[in-house]
Amino acid sequence: MSLNTFGHLFRVTTWGESHGPALGATVDGVPPGVPIDEAMIQHWLDRRKPGQNKYTTQRREPDAVKILSGVFEGQTTGTSVQLMIENTDQRSKDYSEIMEKFRPGHADITYWQKYGIRDYRGGGRSSARETAARVAAGGLAREAIKALAPDVQITGYMVQMGPHGIDRARFDWDQIEQNPFWVPDAQAAEDWAVYLDELRKSGNSVGAVIEVVARGVPAGLGAPIYGKLDTDLAAAMMSINAVKGVEIGEGMAAAALTGVENADEIFMGNDGQPVYSSNHAGGILGGISTGQDVVVRFAVKPTSSILNTRRTITKSGEATEIVTKGRHDPCVGIRAVPVGEAMMACVILDHLLLHRGQVGANRGQIG
Amino acid sequence: MSLNTFGHLFRVTTWGESHGPALGATVDGVPPGVPIDEAMIQHWLDRRKPGQNKYTTQRREPDAVKILSGVFEGQTTGTSVQLMIENTDQRSKDYSEIMEKFRPGHADITYWQKYGIRDYRGGGRSSARETAARVAAGGLAREAIKALAPDVQITGYMVQMGPHGIDRARFDWDQIEQNPFWVPDAQAAEDWAVYLDELRKSGNSVGAVIEVVARGVPAGLGAPIYGKLDTDLAAAMMSINAVKGVEIGEGMAAAALTGVENADEIFMGNDGQPVYSSNHAGGILGGISTGQDVVVRFAVKPTSSILNTRRTITKSGEATEIVTKGRHDPCVGIRAVPVGEAMMACVILDHLLLHRGQVGANRGQIG
Amino acid sequence: MSLNTFGHLFRVTTWGESHGPALGATVDGVPPGVPIDEAMIQHWLDRRKPGQNKYTTQRREPDAVKILSGVFEGQTTGTSVQLMIENTDQRSKDYSEIMEKFRPGHADITYWQKYGIRDYRGGGRSSARETAARVAAGGLAREAIKALAPDVQITGYMVQMGPHGIDRARFDWDQIEQNPFWVPDAQAAEDWAVYLDELRKSGNSVGAVIEVVARGVPAGLGAPIYGKLDTDLAAAMMSINAVKGVEIGEGMAAAALTGVENADEIFMGNDGQPVYSSNHAGGILGGISTGQDVVVRFAVKPTSSILNTRRTITKSGEATEIVTKGRHDPCVGIRAVPVGEAMMACVILDHLLLHRGQVGANRGQIG
Amino acid sequence: MSLNTFGHLFRVTTWGESHGPALGATVDGVPPGVPIDEAMIQHWLDRRKPGQNKYTTQRREPDAVKILSGVFEGQTTGTSVQLMIENTDQRSKDYSEIMEKFRPGHADITYWQKYGIRDYRGGGRSSARETAARVAAGGLAREAIKALAPDVQITGYMVQMGPHGIDRARFDWDQIEQNPFWVPDAQAAEDWAVYLDELRKSGNSVGAVIEVVARGVPAGLGAPIYGKLDTDLAAAMMSINAVKGVEIGEGMAAAALTGVENADEIFMGNDGQPVYSSNHAGGILGGISTGQDVVVRFAVKPTSSILNTRRTITKSGEATEIVTKGRHDPCVGIRAVPVGEAMMACVILDHLLLHRGQVGANRGQIG
Repeated sequence: MSLNTFGHLFRVTTWGESHGPALGATVDGVPPGVPIDEAMIQHWLDRRKPGQNKYTTQRREPDAVKILSGVFEGQTTGTSVQLMIENTDQRSKDYSEIMEKFRPGHADITYWQKYGIRDYRGGGRSSARETAARVAAGGLAREAIKALAPDVQITGYMVQMGPHGIDRARFDWDQIEQNPFWVPDAQAAEDWAVYLDELRKSGNSVGAVIEVVARGVPAGLGAPIYGKLDTDLAAAMMSINAVKGVEIGEGMAAAALTGVENADEIFMGNDGQPVYSSNHAGGILGGISTGQDVVVRFAVKPTSSILNTRRTITKSGEATEIVTKGRHDPCVGIRAVPVGEAMMACVILDHLLLHRGQVGANRGQIG
Repeated sequence: MSLNTFGHLFRVTTWGESHGPALGATVDGVPPGVPIDEAMIQHWLDRRKPGQNKYTTQRREPDAVKILSGVFEGQTTGTSVQLMIENTDQRSKDYSEIMEKFRPGHADITYWQKYGIRDYRGGGRSSARETAARVAAGGLAREAIKALAPDVQITGYMVQMGPHGIDRARFDWDQIEQNPFWVPDAQAAEDWAVYLDELRKSGNSVGAVIEVVARGVPAGLGAPIYGKLDTDLAAAMMSINAVKGVEIGEGMAAAALTGVENADEIFMGNDGQPVYSSNHAGGILGGISTGQDVVVRFAVKPTSSILNTRRTITKSGEATEIVTKGRHDPCVGIRAVPVGEAMMACVILDHLLLHRGQVGANRGQIG
Repeated sequence: MSLNTFGHLFRVTTWGESHGPALGATVDGVPPGVPIDEAMIQHWLDRRKPGQNKYTTQRREPDAVKILSGVFEGQTTGTSVQLMIENTDQRSKDYSEIMEKFRPGHADITYWQKYGIRDYRGGGRSSARETAARVAAGGLAREAIKALAPDVQITGYMVQMGPHGIDRARFDWDQIEQNPFWVPDAQAAEDWAVYLDELRKSGNSVGAVIEVVARGVPAGLGAPIYGKLDTDLAAAMMSINAVKGVEIGEGMAAAALTGVENADEIFMGNDGQPVYSSNHAGGILGGISTGQDVVVRFAVKPTSSILNTRRTITKSGEATEIVTKGRHDPCVGIRAVPVGEAMMACVILDHLLLHRGQVGANRGQIG
Repeated sequence: MSLNTFGHLFRVTTWGESHGPALGATVDGVPPGVPIDEAMIQHWLDRRKPGQNKYTTQRREPDAVKILSGVFEGQTTGTSVQLMIENTDQRSKDYSEIMEKFRPGHADITYWQKYGIRDYRGGGRSSARETAARVAAGGLAREAIKALAPDVQITGYMVQMGPHGIDRARFDWDQIEQNPFWVPDAQAAEDWAVYLDELRKSGNSVGAVIEVVARGVPAGLGAPIYGKLDTDLAAAMMSINAVKGVEIGEGMAAAALTGVENADEIFMGNDGQPVYSSNHAGGILGGISTGQDVVVRFAVKPTSSILNTRRTITKSGEATEIVTKGRHDPCVGIRAVPVGEAMMACVILDHLLLHRGQVGANRGQIG
């Protein structure tokens, strides 16, 4: 990862601000011959799109993606793909309040301290709008994965909102698409709706935990020591706005386990592939995929743009107070679900290519 | 990060296996004129060295570092620095048990599946011995930091061993060097000694959480969007063997907070720099340092090399059982403390250089 | 350099095909606070623009650049800058001839062999139109250089067209802008006009040698061993379409010199800086700039798109003949002049940043 | 390429100075399962070894390579390979003359200006001894190529020494190994011996042109636009000490050709692969290999270490004169032959891996 680029072979560079003319992703290293069109990418962008229900920002943008390069007659050509999304809902508003003040918990102050430039219009480059470009790139990555590892299925969902976790006993894949929270637990969906409604009305916000699972990932992906699959996933997820923690498999809870408890014992499956008694490892050992589900979780902090008054300073160093008006999500974690999926897709594709480049195919047979 | 290399400008490539002739770090992008000698690096290696007490592996190696290049008359020259550590305690032993069996929870199986080569001698490249090279590189990074940001102080310590956390009310920096666990809580040190002793005797192992704090980091470090300071720290820590989770500031607990609770309110300090009412952010906003303490935590899983019998398979796919004899740490988290510090040092230095390269100096003054 | 990206810190990724909707450059690592607007970049694009005289392709495009990101209120923000040029003159034409046949000397056949995709519309990604994106990026680089090294002046010109070289005794900087060939020799300009006119009428094409000089480059730029200033310049120039050779200073002619002849003897100048008796080195020793003029030359082969009949094969392997109709330059070298300048600007800026990152400022004083 | 590293997937980082304890190459991205041992690498190092005849420096070193990592039981493991060569012939000598003076045409002055550190012992990092590490890495690359593209044959030879070129009509592959100049022309070998003997006695030196040919390279290698095969070859060769020019195919002479002359017409060969009437392109079109011989030439300037007196300055800025005594090559170009071959091997392997990573296999069939 390097400034605005991530990936080894499948390299994504995003650009654009929340209130500029457009934003997008320049995607390099795309395998040739991948069938793709704008609708296939739009499908994923629509999932992230704000304004779809009362729990996400009321900014309404079509977020229509245009493919400007790298695709010819419905297939990728192997050259750089430009995915552009024009900003259309840049309503002119009064920024005088925010222009001079730093929002606590926001990148306002650090961008200013670093660059001496402050794009006060909606956060500029630090806005969550940047994640639309990731989702577009992820849509392309998903199509490319199909040709290389057709069994891969990537699904994200929320497992915690504020203090409220899901009940894993009620886990139901089919529920995920049935509620505005992408939560695999119907009861939680109901409870969270009540909780978030109240929070929203109070002008407050709350954090969340998102889990992203990649099923069907072949064994052997990952490039130890510093390009480990989990290393790249950790970086990918931590790079998403507002993320403060990343876990693989047991995650932080692994600290409390003993070696006996943590051991995923190994057996031979009926299909001649190893199977495991459990998946504490989250599908990754020594930075390389085992063939089990790859499981990543990340925590999103509550948005700092809230209606409650907080104390802060101005650019000229004077003490003041701030209230952030405008269109904001009470739980930005909701819209982080498709973003997490997109990052997983990009990392998996990148490692499929990297593995094929260095190794060709998995070499060690068992049995 | 790329296979065996990490860093943008300060780039560290590690090499070597646990039972080969040597291992080391090839360090590129080192600023010229940094005063350095082997003793200065050895100081940090000695902290990581195994066999110092009964809680770490009884493998005894001097781990003596040699500087083979990039230093002339006591100063770095600006060219690549080779730091080599020869392996001396490679006692010949009977690997017949481990040669054909995969240890549950270990990288044995994935390295085999990926590469079709298995260096069964002590884990080969996936051994924790690789982290000695990081510590050496980190020692060099610390010296280079002194010239660029002399106020930076990097300290790691354990905050949890198995189910036992520290009591933050008893936090005492001075305790860290006083006990074999690098724990800043004298009472915890006593309790953990009893706990770990018992665990060790039972042949079991346990996980841990390490916290690394960088104090005195100037505001403005970090390269959004994908080279964020927290992104690079997450990758750096996740790349350490056995790490399963990484947190910045509040970490996973941020999910349970509301925006009101999470806000680090801003004030002007007496020295004309911003001060904050709290540090939920862990010193990083929008991927850029705020000038507060940079706080990272990571969880280390229990080592999979335990004396308890577990079920597994052989390379030829037959069901079997395994017991891992030999020299192992009941809590590898202990020795991860200096490793975490080293990774923090490398990342901070890298971002000091990267920031200086792109921006020169912080540009936005407050007040 | 990596697929569609070049640069260490100042990183340029270009995208787009000759006949797609648009092409452009995604530019990362730009220092913040550089004053820039579209007109400042357009200035350089206009120099490269085709159709300005009878010696360049008659394709007429405004080549109007749009800045889509990374600039706010007339200054760079430090985030990724998107420079887009829409393709407007994509006249629909009959590609049936070229669709199935490979043009000798053209990338048609290799793109097909590699990717199995052939964008037959004007060469697709291999078209010289891609160089417009470089010129745009170079325009931005020039402005950024002004803040870091204001004395730098980058000038390109032709020194050879086909068999006709310039007479160095007549070298006149002021002539460069006075003729359609960017040639610093008024007599050559006249002679070449006659020569090229005849060649153009015959449907043939011819090669050229371009020289690009950077004056005022401070001593100390360049990152040995593999990021040498001359290494990066060689790569930068060789990456331009149709370039077959690159020289620094004496270039290939250095082979014929003895050590005595080649020695650039060193003296102290009146300003306390070293001066040299000659500049065989082309301003670079050991990969690092000396403070003398940085001198690069590159040879551009004649375009393969000519009206003369040549033998070739079809995609299905049948022998055939081909004549390339359409709008083409008899000497593509002419339009390579601003491209070479742009690449020089990008490389110099990149090394200014890289040097500042690693070293801070030059450290070794003389005298 | 980045400071001391080159390559995309097959990445080589070299380290070490001419008079330090050792130097070497840290090689990452090596495919697993490549049969290798020290003797196989030593074979190539022995070709570069100085002191083999009176035309190369009389420094006598065994240049014995040690494999310190990444190889287990005679095969590469897929992890980083450390190739170390200890410096044994570091005879202590009087450097007082050279310590304070800058040698004209040498990197002494620029290293000093950049880094403020001067390793005066034999040139330090800028010494041609660094190229031994490249040759070692190239030896490993050659073995890895065998598995991926067994038909590839890489051969370098001199085509010009000072003003004396070879006669292509006398070109004989078998001659290359028969003379101390690696020249494929027996008559030239005789003439050059006389010429160089005289030059050597006069204390002077001379430049050379080396040509490196890779036969049997499959079509489809190269990653346009900035990772072109010719771009990477140009960078690879230009990064070798003392190289001032690089040519692909026709090289600089392409400028003098017309499109008609330069066209390599295409036919179908008997084996169903395209064949060409000529190879002006040097086996590369649009940055991608055609399947023809890949032909690269580079010019090496005469060494600046000569016995003739030249004027220069001291570190304190005083005018002085210098004569470089000691062991030096009258024509460093001779020993550049195995170095050029090694760089070709590394680049070809890197592109084989990169191509396999992105594309898998060539996709476009002809016929």
